[in-house]
Amino acid sequence: MELKSYVREIPDFPKKGVSYKDITPLLLDHEAMNLAVKLFMNNLPHGKIDKVVGIESRGFFFATLLADKLNAGFIPVRKPGKLPYKTHSENYELEYGRDTLEIHEDAIKMGERILLHDDVLATGGTAAATSRLIEKCGGEIVQCNFLVELEFLNGISKLDKFEVSSLIKYS
Amino acid sequence: MELKSYVREIPDFPKKGVSYKDITPLLLDHEAMNLAVKLFMNNLPHGKIDKVVGIESRGFFFATLLADKLNAGFIPVRKPGKLPYKTHSENYELEYGRDTLEIHEDAIKMGERILLHDDVLATGGTAAATSRLIEKCGGEIVQCNFLVELEFLNGISKLDKFEVSSLIKYS
Repeated sequence: MELKSYVREIPDFPKKGVSYKDITPLLLDHEAMNLAVKLFMNNLPHGKIDKVVGIESRGFFFATLLADKLNAGFIPVRKPGKLPYKTHSENYELEYGRDTLEIHEDAIKMGERILLHDDVLATGGTAAATSRLIEKCGGEIVQCNFLVELEFLNGISKLDKFEVSSLIKYS
Repeated sequence: MELKSYVREIPDFPKKGVSYKDITPLLLDHEAMNLAVKLFMNNLPHGKIDKVVGIESRGFFFATLLADKLNAGFIPVRKPGKLPYKTHSENYELEYGRDTLEIHEDAIKMGERILLHDDVLATGGTAAATSRLIEKCGGEIVQCNFLVELEFLNGISKLDKFEVSSLIKYS
């Protein structure tokens, strides 16, 4: 089974010239989901992971599954105004303008070992902002993992402090 | 272990007079997560479930976990413009105005048995709109389940065609 065959490419979405990687066919197939989780687990570094951070909102799909397999807690990183308790926030640059991500201040205890997960690594802006949120809380990032990596956008350059793993690559 | 003790009440969020039920402390604790999943599974009706539908975005947290335990596919129902392929859409009423939810047209095959999941049952508007989306695709809803039910908002009245189950109730 080739995971990439479960990703549907949608031309000109969300705008002209972009080939969007639609992971919903993979989510529909429980064998493909199981394989993805197994590969994520096989690629993790040794040692306990305390919490898995998933980035809103497609990062939530696999982050809770990984937390479950690891007997770890799950932490959602969200857009502004969504988390109801006290938060840390970090800005990141978009093509036009900037956006913000938030984490609950009490989500991570000092020194906890954290897995950062998102569905797609593109320019790396959201993952890098999330890594700063985790470090603000005192967490230690043991890996950043992604279902899909768009290698031609070189997002990995924004995560060069960290171990990075991705299952499906587009070069 | 009492699941309700993991829900944090936030006064006046997102607006004055509302006591928001913050489930993030429950997500942080893998034993509480495991218990919630076990209770969801115990409360399901007999028979195979083909797909689990989760409603954007907090419904994604447990919907993928339930799909995993059931060896079922997972389907995200999302806000407009998020799903890249052909969609069905349904409107629902808000306190002021209306909003829309979408599902991929090819997410469900005729006659498939579907579990509808969201984190909170409040007025029932989003769950009812989602039930219409599932039926448009030809799916048969075997249960609607929720982590939290705000019984005083009587959302269950909008789902009276369906079996409804919720783990944590506020009356």
